Amino acid sequence: MSLSNSSPVHHPDWVAEVHATQYLQSWSKQGGRPRVITGAEGSWFWDSNGKRYLDFQSQLVNANMGHQHPRIVEAIKEQADRLCYIGPAMGCDVRSELAALVAEITPTNLTSTFFTTGGAAANETAVRLARHYTGRSKIVARYRSYHGATGGTLSLTGDPRHHLTRADMPGVVRMLDPYCYRCPAGHEDVKTCPICRGGPHLEEILMYEDPNTVAAVILEPVVGTNGIIVPPDGYLESIKATCEKYGILLIADEVMAGYGRTGKWFAVDHWDVQPDILTSAKGINSGYVPLGTMSVSAEIANWLKDNALPGGLTYAGHPLACASGVAAIRAMDDEGALENATRLGEIMREELRAMMQRHPSLGDVRGLGMFNGIELVRNQETREPLVPFGAKGDAAAPMPAIMKAAMEKGLYLSFYNNIVRLTPPLNISEHDMRHGLSILDEVLDIADSETR
Amino acid sequence: MSLSNSSPVHHPDWVAEVHATQYLQSWSKQGGRPRVITGAEGSWFWDSNGKRYLDFQSQLVNANMGHQHPRIVEAIKEQADRLCYIGPAMGCDVRSELAALVAEITPTNLTSTFFTTGGAAANETAVRLARHYTGRSKIVARYRSYHGATGGTLSLTGDPRHHLTRADMPGVVRMLDPYCYRCPAGHEDVKTCPICRGGPHLEEILMYEDPNTVAAVILEPVVGTNGIIVPPDGYLESIKATCEKYGILLIADEVMAGYGRTGKWFAVDHWDVQPDILTSAKGINSGYVPLGTMSVSAEIANWLKDNALPGGLTYAGHPLACASGVAAIRAMDDEGALENATRLGEIMREELRAMMQRHPSLGDVRGLGMFNGIELVRNQETREPLVPFGAKGDAAAPMPAIMKAAMEKGLYLSFYNNIVRLTPPLNISEHDMRHGLSILDEVLDIADSETR
Repeated sequence: MSLSNSSPVHHPDWVAEVHATQYLQSWSKQGGRPRVITGAEGSWFWDSNGKRYLDFQSQLVNANMGHQHPRIVEAIKEQADRLCYIGPAMGCDVRSELAALVAEITPTNLTSTFFTTGGAAANETAVRLARHYTGRSKIVARYRSYHGATGGTLSLTGDPRHHLTRADMPGVVRMLDPYCYRCPAGHEDVKTCPICRGGPHLEEILMYEDPNTVAAVILEPVVGTNGIIVPPDGYLESIKATCEKYGILLIADEVMAGYGRTGKWFAVDHWDVQPDILTSAKGINSGYVPLGTMSVSAEIANWLKDNALPGGLTYAGHPLACASGVAAIRAMDDEGALENATRLGEIMREELRAMMQRHPSLGDVRGLGMFNGIELVRNQETREPLVPFGAKGDAAAPMPAIMKAAMEKGLYLSFYNNIVRLTPPLNISEHDMRHGLSILDEVLDIADSETR
Repeated sequence: MSLSNSSPVHHPDWVAEVHATQYLQSWSKQGGRPRVITGAEGSWFWDSNGKRYLDFQSQLVNANMGHQHPRIVEAIKEQADRLCYIGPAMGCDVRSELAALVAEITPTNLTSTFFTTGGAAANETAVRLARHYTGRSKIVARYRSYHGATGGTLSLTGDPRHHLTRADMPGVVRMLDPYCYRCPAGHEDVKTCPICRGGPHLEEILMYEDPNTVAAVILEPVVGTNGIIVPPDGYLESIKATCEKYGILLIADEVMAGYGRTGKWFAVDHWDVQPDILTSAKGINSGYVPLGTMSVSAEIANWLKDNALPGGLTYAGHPLACASGVAAIRAMDDEGALENATRLGEIMREELRAMMQRHPSLGDVRGLGMFNGIELVRNQETREPLVPFGAKGDAAAPMPAIMKAAMEKGLYLSFYNNIVRLTPPLNISEHDMRHGLSILDEVLDIADSETR
């Protein structure tokens, strides 16, 4: 047979038409015509009309080193020439090099890494391993969480997408979140709140569940998609201590928070907490090649000498992915990306807090490094959210209106309920970041008009 | 901080040591020192000692166009220079181009494709979508099957790895396999066997389960890992007709069988069966970049205009992966890879059948195209398997001994219980294929010594 070769493949109308009719889009109704993107560099991307957008989301919070970073691109091209693929059982230089680098930057107790194609497979393997290692079945997970879209990880996920499983993985137990701005226990002061302190809330749940049946607690140390929730100091330490008390593993899902997003290699580093298992993806190589990791403690690695890892995949330790990971980590280190994220993150939050004076819709500013969120409200005092949780249609309308207005002004933002996430590349320039904030400043007028 | 940069990263001893101590290996106990692979080309790869191996497995049955195919490598490098990544909601030329190409080569009823990072995520999404589309919950899956290592797909999997889930996804119903060499119903003649005919066996199961509760049947049209089982003519047609009768979707898992492996684009093409959903990965781009697909019928695509796709992932429609898929499909087409697989596959099976005269351990030869398997037995008459199903340790020893002997002679094979899989690249030369078979001929003496 001979395939058609006549498609005007680079014509944006054709690209948009095929996208609308033959490509299926994540989590969406199909048929919408997309913006056709024709290039990207650093913190910017542009469409087929030549319009440029400042990427204040790092796409899906993955382009930590921005777009088309020359060192990562070069590493991919070099590895493509050397060896695109070899099976996971074979020794391969870049695979070992990445394993050694990851061990160097993850918390010191973590020694060994399993490489996947993304966060979901990493979390699936982590949870299954925890069950085998402990011989227990239950997993404690939080509501304001996203852990992936596979059978197990969607069951762990607390955000409304978990309503879609249609067949939940058994054994998931829920814990509430240290969401102090809207404290689930109704406290003003974290010191008096068992939930926002962490351990006491987990203790109570374990008392009801029986700690001997619980294999692991999985959590995003700083919550990502579900609202950029930074835990109060002491929270993670308290959760970890409670886990240790009962022989329960702590799994840190750093798919979004890891690899410099918070200004340190990993979010847990802010509190020196050592999880037993840490998963990542996204920022490890800015998403240039699909890649995820599951790193385990020396104790678990030792156990795995006598017990088979209960997981695997064709693309485990993919050479092209590993090569891009090595280059990205070295570039982040050499170019001071973490330091930049820390410095500009502080400026960003300071500017946002200043905006709270001008914008009655700006209810809360929070974040760490380049992992920031603002919460939009109808009233700063009552904290009534601009749109209700899970709102659809007209009730949700102000949020997409703000996104659209920003996009028209060349700023790419995204949101979750009433929360706008501000997660530019770690290596964004101060000038570009201030430019993005100035557009945000303008479009917040839309939210202000809804206040009362 | 400054990362260590002094590792002698290209020294094979260092690579092997890190692999053994800091890298976690799929499905295995850890700590073994691997063969260090330093290069590959076409049907061959080689290690750090310069020893060359003929890849009769296409690694994990993914390198359908062999190693380092220049057109696929070039496409990856070009796309790396253009755009490594952009979010799944954006229009992107190679993403649309691959969607259009896949629609062109998949069965005519399939119009729209969701791109994942591999087979597991594709199958997860397929099963979840089937449940939403039909409003039903049960999924019928077979025992001799492998569908992936995530929560849902490992629950669907019938091979012993599904014992590892520790928390099965609810709703999986089992069907037996059309494994005529060891017919589950004990028949000699397929015409008298309800299981090997397909529909009658499925009908009986549906009678007990209630067909109105069954969303889908998922199957590998030609079983891969679990023994290269080619269904008798009429089987898939019969399964499909039964599904249609009850409004049950047929999901064809062509992760291993698809993209020319059987000598046609898809295994279902051998019987002109149109599944409602078809999943793939591996051969689509020879695994050079992690990529999988879920293609759906026009009816389902139409339904998805009013109903959101219940799945998604960061790397959906990954540009680098899509570019490699476009190049691989065009190369397969231009270079006659399917025709080569068909022609050489016939020669391979003819040669293997001739070996049955010389080797009393050779019990069965079966396959399609470059998707072939032989079954090793202790006695051709009784068909007693060389090693029992699920054997471990000494009881399983003859099989790894054969693999090891072949590897020493430069032939890379793999096995499942008593079955050796022979799945070289589709574009292997006749000379290389005959060379591989001559080594196999030699090492089968090991199996012969176990016959009685």
